[in-house]
Amino acid sequence: MLFLRRFYSKSGRIAQILKTNKPGDSLAIQGWIKNVRRLKNNTFLDINDGSTSSRFQVVVPRTPENQHLAPGSVIAAVGKIQVAPNGSFELHANQVEMLAEGRLQEGYPFSPKQKHPPEYVREHLHLRSRVDFVAAQMRVRHKAQKAIHDYMDDQDFVQINTPLLTTNDCEGAGEVFRVQPDSQDLLKQMNRPNIPMEQSYFDSKVFLSVSGQLHLEAMTYGLGKTYTLSPAFRAENSKSPLHLAEFYMFEAELAHLEEMEKLAQFIEQMLKSVTNRLLETSGEDLSFCQRNSNSNSDLPWLQVPWKIMSYDEALQVLQENKDSLKTPISLNEGFSKDQELFLVAHCGAPVFVVDWPAQQKPFYMKVSRSNPNRVHALDLLMPAVGELCGGSLRESDPAILKSHPHLPKDLEWYVDLRKYGGVPTGGFGMGFERYLQLVTGVKNIRDVIPFPRYPHSCKM
Amino acid sequence: MLFLRRFYSKSGRIAQILKTNKPGDSLAIQGWIKNVRRLKNNTFLDINDGSTSSRFQVVVPRTPENQHLAPGSVIAAVGKIQVAPNGSFELHANQVEMLAEGRLQEGYPFSPKQKHPPEYVREHLHLRSRVDFVAAQMRVRHKAQKAIHDYMDDQDFVQINTPLLTTNDCEGAGEVFRVQPDSQDLLKQMNRPNIPMEQSYFDSKVFLSVSGQLHLEAMTYGLGKTYTLSPAFRAENSKSPLHLAEFYMFEAELAHLEEMEKLAQFIEQMLKSVTNRLLETSGEDLSFCQRNSNSNSDLPWLQVPWKIMSYDEALQVLQENKDSLKTPISLNEGFSKDQELFLVAHCGAPVFVVDWPAQQKPFYMKVSRSNPNRVHALDLLMPAVGELCGGSLRESDPAILKSHPHLPKDLEWYVDLRKYGGVPTGGFGMGFERYLQLVTGVKNIRDVIPFPRYPHSCKM
Repeated sequence: MLFLRRFYSKSGRIAQILKTNKPGDSLAIQGWIKNVRRLKNNTFLDINDGSTSSRFQVVVPRTPENQHLAPGSVIAAVGKIQVAPNGSFELHANQVEMLAEGRLQEGYPFSPKQKHPPEYVREHLHLRSRVDFVAAQMRVRHKAQKAIHDYMDDQDFVQINTPLLTTNDCEGAGEVFRVQPDSQDLLKQMNRPNIPMEQSYFDSKVFLSVSGQLHLEAMTYGLGKTYTLSPAFRAENSKSPLHLAEFYMFEAELAHLEEMEKLAQFIEQMLKSVTNRLLETSGEDLSFCQRNSNSNSDLPWLQVPWKIMSYDEALQVLQENKDSLKTPISLNEGFSKDQELFLVAHCGAPVFVVDWPAQQKPFYMKVSRSNPNRVHALDLLMPAVGELCGGSLRESDPAILKSHPHLPKDLEWYVDLRKYGGVPTGGFGMGFERYLQLVTGVKNIRDVIPFPRYPHSCKM
Repeated sequence: MLFLRRFYSKSGRIAQILKTNKPGDSLAIQGWIKNVRRLKNNTFLDINDGSTSSRFQVVVPRTPENQHLAPGSVIAAVGKIQVAPNGSFELHANQVEMLAEGRLQEGYPFSPKQKHPPEYVREHLHLRSRVDFVAAQMRVRHKAQKAIHDYMDDQDFVQINTPLLTTNDCEGAGEVFRVQPDSQDLLKQMNRPNIPMEQSYFDSKVFLSVSGQLHLEAMTYGLGKTYTLSPAFRAENSKSPLHLAEFYMFEAELAHLEEMEKLAQFIEQMLKSVTNRLLETSGEDLSFCQRNSNSNSDLPWLQVPWKIMSYDEALQVLQENKDSLKTPISLNEGFSKDQELFLVAHCGAPVFVVDWPAQQKPFYMKVSRSNPNRVHALDLLMPAVGELCGGSLRESDPAILKSHPHLPKDLEWYVDLRKYGGVPTGGFGMGFERYLQLVTGVKNIRDVIPFPRYPHSCKM
């Protein structure tokens, strides 16, 4: 039996078999038993090997020695591909070997026949990948990252691993995590004069990055087009289904960018191209995730041109419809999610809101030369999730940057970037998990990341 | 002029022009002036746009209005491609527009004509990408990551973003960074009974990950084949040119792995395939980096089969040659870098050292059933860098795991993975920067990562 398994060990995994094999092919598969049905002559096993959300049936003769096959166990099966009455491929196995026992009755939290709510599944984080919708979600996440890397490489961008340890807190929001060695001995051993003990390792206060943008900009002045798809961290006390303490940001910077319309065009083309690619590589897993979260499986925003409107226009639309809004309009704080979704519905398409009041946006955004109260910023608003991307032209004039009232201290280096060959640049950032929520329809961000970290929860 | 630049704005970047254009083509380029030579009738500009380490020459008529063109400035040039006397393409420009002034005389730390040592360049981290060898290194780093993602996707692995915030310190080495919110107010606001104040956010002590392996294993039991290419952190007081406080680990896990030889085979094929791909996509940048670090440009290990030897055999080789070694042999601590390089030279090829003494290796490695003092572990030793990969079969028996004297507390979940359907698994980890040092010949690890973090240094 062992011999047979090894002999066949080159055979593909189930996803591959479904695509490339044909009836009559002899092969072996290995996987977890998801379900067992025993009829008079045969036992029917649903097998999953992690490669697909499709069920794959293995038919084995009902013999005493196959009587112990149970959900959760891992088997190797050798046999021939046949077409089942429903048209699917199935494996008619002449030999089955048990590789490991399921032992699900000994405290396993999931029932193979029951659909558990995501909140319950999340409580058993270390076993969660064995649940079909979580595995499908992880495959989609992988293919979405792959599609982004492929697209950006094709467009000649250089991926930069922006640092996660940093001495600046970027937008100065204050919601940062602080980092220091755990060992008091190490701190003592490394301490230098006039440095507080907890800062001994780096000789300064060090935080976890909230965005890679500023570092990406530094690299853009040598490489022209750069991007990052890196973890970012926020120490917020938020229980929202749209926020995590540790999440991933996709950020890109482009030299020689002088027009907001070009940035909007780039983002629209990139998101449409990446999503179309994802539909090609993960169509089945995407549908599975969408069905599982009871959401709509067509993504109408792929088919229509996206809109651009100014902040003033957007504000006017909201003011004219304020009776339909759940939240009051604020002139100091941007739009609420409810307002963002209203604007998307009003436009019948995703919409870039541009030309924002300067006082609502960070210090690095380019000030309009014709109206210093406005900056060349954009927010991309999408159905279901609201704001998906934020971007801007960056202020290229070192004198204007330097006199900005909110320029953080210790960012002399950032001003320096513009001093020598300060070419116009611009870029954007996108919360990667929010994108995954958009395409899969998953309601809670904690279910689109393998190991969610949020207030009062850092399991494993 | 602005009109012309926009009209031509679809033209490729220099790397693309060198590959796809032909003499006589009209086009525009944008980039930084690296060098200026003025002859009687013409001015010769070396232009770099971040896309290649090749110099690209722009020839402009020597006119009074072109007199201000200087290194560091950014220009747009419009003209026709011609072949220079040395056979290279060059652009004969009829129009040149200055997009931003260089102002290098106002404190810029690098001289355009001088080759600065990497230690000096590193002191000016924010401007470093403008130095040719650093830009080349960053492009190589990007293409190496791309090659890894492509290979692993092609082999049907699922990329998992293993968490960077974790409550376990993996191998229990103690050299971990601790994480907590910077805001005392937030800590107070979130504090719960019986939780120390600094742990308020997550209700437990949280560290930065030193390895994604354990989390990756949890995902492997649902997905079958997984990998991660993620940041990892170590709070060591090491000034070594092979260590950083923040670095990248490439780790993979495979279900149904029962033989060390198959793991060694996978690693060898993967590294050869990824490196050959890198030579295809980045040959020029690789040579540039190698020349810049005075290292050998052929990688002879691509051409030969790699060796496997047991720990006992390796020890015997070293003992027979102890007079040639710089460091004494230890029976408790593995090999020194000097000894590793001796073994590689002795074998005339990269070598996998397998079957290690159990007491030298972590708790999760599979104990040999025929000799409980040995574990199924491998170290891959390479020329120049020594150990590049470490891997093992993982202990699949929950009872053996549970009774391991060094099983960290709070890892009940890890034992649980084996309890239900505990299929045999195995995997490896590779320091990504060490791989980059191997292929580029760069001596100091601080020069293969965009923003190096090490003791007493966390700039920007």
